[in-house]
Amino acid sequence: MEIELKLDRNMRIIGADSRGHETVFDSHTFPGDEDSAPSPMEILLQAMAACSFMDVISIIRKKRKIVNDLKIYATAKREDTHPKVISKVHLIFELFSSDAEIYDLNKAIELSQTTYCGASIMFQRSGCEVTWEGKISRD
Amino acid sequence: MEIELKLDRNMRIIGADSRGHETVFDSHTFPGDEDSAPSPMEILLQAMAACSFMDVISIIRKKRKIVNDLKIYATAKREDTHPKVISKVHLIFELFSSDAEIYDLNKAIELSQTTYCGASIMFQRSGCEVTWEGKISRD
Repeated sequence: MEIELKLDRNMRIIGADSRGHETVFDSHTFPGDEDSAPSPMEILLQAMAACSFMDVISIIRKKRKIVNDLKIYATAKREDTHPKVISKVHLIFELFSSDAEIYDLNKAIELSQTTYCGASIMFQRSGCEVTWEGKISRD
Repeated sequence: MEIELKLDRNMRIIGADSRGHETVFDSHTFPGDEDSAPSPMEILLQAMAACSFMDVISIIRKKRKIVNDLKIYATAKREDTHPKVISKVHLIFELFSSDAEIYDLNKAIELSQTTYCGASIMFQRSGCEVTWEGKISRD
């Protein structure tokens, strides 16, 4: 994998992948920061959850169950002192499906979190406590 | 920290922070994937580098040196088998400054990577080998 980061005219950080897609990072830590984009640590958490999101959709579909929608809500705790690592993450997976059961969802999340999701496993190996729960919505 | 992820109409993942800023994740793993945005693991790497990027700018400025621009080029190796964690990262920091010396830059990178950058320290604690180098450009 290769990526690049540079500044734009507003002193925001622009990340680019090897195919030219851009991701914007900003800061809201200090007075005067623009807060026009998520911070690096917020996006780190999003990327971890997005990795597991893709796994869960893929596993549910392999079980030939319907995925109408999926949402993940994540809350995380950062340490108060440097280095301000993320020490706890809780992920809530809400699957919108007319036929999947909670068992299917929980099994998919467990497989992702223990076997497939490289990002979550990096979080766990770093010492971060990652917990999760599943919820089925029939809407 | 709180974040949410949902699907858009093109089955891309949209991440949102608590202030409503969005980040787009897509996939290019399978035939038919749109590849309209970076993948979760590419953005995980970008977020780590962006965290260190902010530290380095802040430290160089505290030394009252000029930051005309900063670029980071990152290459990473992922494991071939599940979980496909990132096992190696090399970061090249190119500082564009008329007065900063390579010593200032290397010291700033070292401080970030060993003390301040929570994301990089999470990578290192997970077992990922993170290496770096600095380069000064006078343009």
